[in-house]
Amino acid sequence: MDLEQVKNYYLKERERILSELKQFLSFKSISTNSSFKTECIQCAKWLSSHFEACGLESTLIETPTLPLVYSWYNCSPEAPTVVFYGHYDVQPPDPLEAWESDPFCAVEKNGRLYARGAQDNKGQLFYFVKAVEFLLKQKALNCNLKIIIEGEEESGGKGITSVLNDIKDKIKGDVLLVCDTGTPYAEAGAVTVGLRGIIALTVEITGPRKDLHSGVHGGVAPNPAQILCTLLSSLHNKDGSVAVTGFYEGIAEPTAEELKLLNTFPVTDNLYKELTGVLPLGGERDKDLLIRRGFRPTLEINGITSGYTGQGMKTIVPHNAEAKISCRTVVGQKKPEELLNLVCSQIEKNFNDMFPNKESGLHLRIKEKVTAGEALKVNPTSWHIQKASEILKEITGKETIFIWEGASIPIISELSKVSGALPLLVGFGLEEDNIHAPNESFSLEQFMKGFLFCSLFLSKAEK
Amino acid sequence: MDLEQVKNYYLKERERILSELKQFLSFKSISTNSSFKTECIQCAKWLSSHFEACGLESTLIETPTLPLVYSWYNCSPEAPTVVFYGHYDVQPPDPLEAWESDPFCAVEKNGRLYARGAQDNKGQLFYFVKAVEFLLKQKALNCNLKIIIEGEEESGGKGITSVLNDIKDKIKGDVLLVCDTGTPYAEAGAVTVGLRGIIALTVEITGPRKDLHSGVHGGVAPNPAQILCTLLSSLHNKDGSVAVTGFYEGIAEPTAEELKLLNTFPVTDNLYKELTGVLPLGGERDKDLLIRRGFRPTLEINGITSGYTGQGMKTIVPHNAEAKISCRTVVGQKKPEELLNLVCSQIEKNFNDMFPNKESGLHLRIKEKVTAGEALKVNPTSWHIQKASEILKEITGKETIFIWEGASIPIISELSKVSGALPLLVGFGLEEDNIHAPNESFSLEQFMKGFLFCSLFLSKAEK
Repeated sequence: MDLEQVKNYYLKERERILSELKQFLSFKSISTNSSFKTECIQCAKWLSSHFEACGLESTLIETPTLPLVYSWYNCSPEAPTVVFYGHYDVQPPDPLEAWESDPFCAVEKNGRLYARGAQDNKGQLFYFVKAVEFLLKQKALNCNLKIIIEGEEESGGKGITSVLNDIKDKIKGDVLLVCDTGTPYAEAGAVTVGLRGIIALTVEITGPRKDLHSGVHGGVAPNPAQILCTLLSSLHNKDGSVAVTGFYEGIAEPTAEELKLLNTFPVTDNLYKELTGVLPLGGERDKDLLIRRGFRPTLEINGITSGYTGQGMKTIVPHNAEAKISCRTVVGQKKPEELLNLVCSQIEKNFNDMFPNKESGLHLRIKEKVTAGEALKVNPTSWHIQKASEILKEITGKETIFIWEGASIPIISELSKVSGALPLLVGFGLEEDNIHAPNESFSLEQFMKGFLFCSLFLSKAEK
Repeated sequence: MDLEQVKNYYLKERERILSELKQFLSFKSISTNSSFKTECIQCAKWLSSHFEACGLESTLIETPTLPLVYSWYNCSPEAPTVVFYGHYDVQPPDPLEAWESDPFCAVEKNGRLYARGAQDNKGQLFYFVKAVEFLLKQKALNCNLKIIIEGEEESGGKGITSVLNDIKDKIKGDVLLVCDTGTPYAEAGAVTVGLRGIIALTVEITGPRKDLHSGVHGGVAPNPAQILCTLLSSLHNKDGSVAVTGFYEGIAEPTAEELKLLNTFPVTDNLYKELTGVLPLGGERDKDLLIRRGFRPTLEINGITSGYTGQGMKTIVPHNAEAKISCRTVVGQKKPEELLNLVCSQIEKNFNDMFPNKESGLHLRIKEKVTAGEALKVNPTSWHIQKASEILKEITGKETIFIWEGASIPIISELSKVSGALPLLVGFGLEEDNIHAPNESFSLEQFMKGFLFCSLFLSKAEK
């Protein structure tokens, strides 16, 4: 199977393929709103039938919430097994009035397809489906396939999480292919080889029984807002590193190979400022931006509230103060639960150092504790990454970009562990696709590249 | 004039006096709500006529907003001149449904009079009026009187502030008597000999153009919430003192006399905790509670807001963070405007030390700056304080309590300066009077003490 061949097929079948995609996009499979449950189930059934029509076997796996679509193809026991993960649910289209066309009636315009889900994830999932169909027609599918498509990626992933261990045997494999990521610029292809994990918590300081008059009590009553500020500020060192004992333990430095690949797409301070409005002065300032994002954990304040925050002055000593904190974690660090304990213990210790008297009337409460997913890193020199990288270079004519992404996709790490398959995250999304926002769209050029990539990878999947 | 004589008169005239007070309380003189403007003016006219009926001369002084009632009595050029300040306006009665009786139809119950303004300030003002009436009847008023009653104390004092300099000559005097304070317990009388001043400001840190994804940008973008916490925490030293250079400059230590009087009503840590729920661990912890409240300035955070503060997590780097700060100031410190500049400069310096690069994209903005009144201290050994103290002791049979109050009554300091009169703050309010709240009331026993005090003080006002 060569690139020319695949491309010719795609261009010939383009109209049919896009018309089928438009059908898939017409389902209002909004998982977060239970009034769309029926539409979600109809969408899952449509997709399952579609897999069958393409020549795969397929079934629905029931969960306590929405069903999973499970499809498979047995090539031969010697061939590698590719596990594919995707999701058929979409974000709500709100605010509807901001859309230029109906979000559930896809429209082609200027080389783009506009619809909710056009990119995330129906569009990116569909080029994979069509590549499988093509290879089956050509008898060129050279791997076993196990496809698992969930319906709650946009709303917490309850269904898949609750049945993951039961379907362990159904998803054993070698490569976990996920087409739900993007590339920093259209001309080049990108492989995501790192994701950070995430833990979160809320810290509350309570003091006086009620807000106190700051004249009568100012300078006498301990002020929860001030205490919280001091407590939060004690969680970072002056150099921007996290001041939690043991936080960085176990983290390996990036390998020489990783560093080399990382620097194929450097980001300058000025480019960062252009993008965000600020210089990259957060976190461990002495380290390079891409190292910090991909290889270093963080502790960020996501929100604070205390006392009076309206217009003008209200002179009180507030009775409480609260902050939301989340940490992005990296491979090599302690397990998420241990890490969460570490952060909580440090906060408690710092608070107790400030107010050792148990009778102070001040209380520290740590609540809303969450460990929402583990970090993930894939060796960029492993065979499947190398192969993907070569294919991308062949398609685009440009060197492949390697991304150690700072964000988290919680299920991937778990899925990789349970299935035993090494993650391969390749996607063709672009910043301008407006995923999760009004007027979501997907470049049809990028859609085609996805089709080319999946076709070539699956036909050459032997190790 | 002796105590027995005054008391006998009061008991004989009690019903008439209270029925007149009830009339005064029936006016809905709510200054903050412009729809009550006519009621406010009617109340002022009624009060002015009432002063005339008592034997004083009286007029209304127009202001750009609500009129002042100005009444006077000339005793003799040799006699001291007492300037009296009070206010005829009241707080809104809301929430109305929480009242057990009509707030503008005063009701006597269990030795208390229930109505909006029963204590603050119509009740406390009215015992003074009735004492003057009594002394005039008895030809025992031994001082000149200049009475100024404003109608906007509860809503910012615009009227009096805008005409204060024009009426300078009308209010020249020796003693500025104000009956708008209270006593910590009913059995003893109290003289307030100190008030703190107040300045306020809002600090805002802005960073990224919008909230950023904390996965993609965490540990890279500077976080305004974290920066604000560090900045705020830099404004106090570890011992709780304010870390603003020059902040404490000029403050005199309390005199031996002040210390002696202060300790006539000590507050223990346990009593404080019982009252508020916390031990007094705020401010300069190495100093005594009453010293801190009465003689030391403070810097308090009144409120903070940044990022996401709802339920659960929203993993962002917030684009901005804001805090409200106010300082209580004391006598000897720099002028309010200078002090405000000092605090602002320190905040700017600390911020610039953290982020010296002008191109960082981070911005500090200090806004909503206010200097709302200067601190005030009266020498407790001055003749008028001594006299007031003796009279209170005579009435109550208990040692008089001296209060260096931490709160602020902005106009008093200005009024004292313009009139040249030394403040004398004596009031009979109690914590349980619920001023500014539903079911405001005034103990009729306390009302009588007010009558006794004013009668005795004004009859013995010669130096």
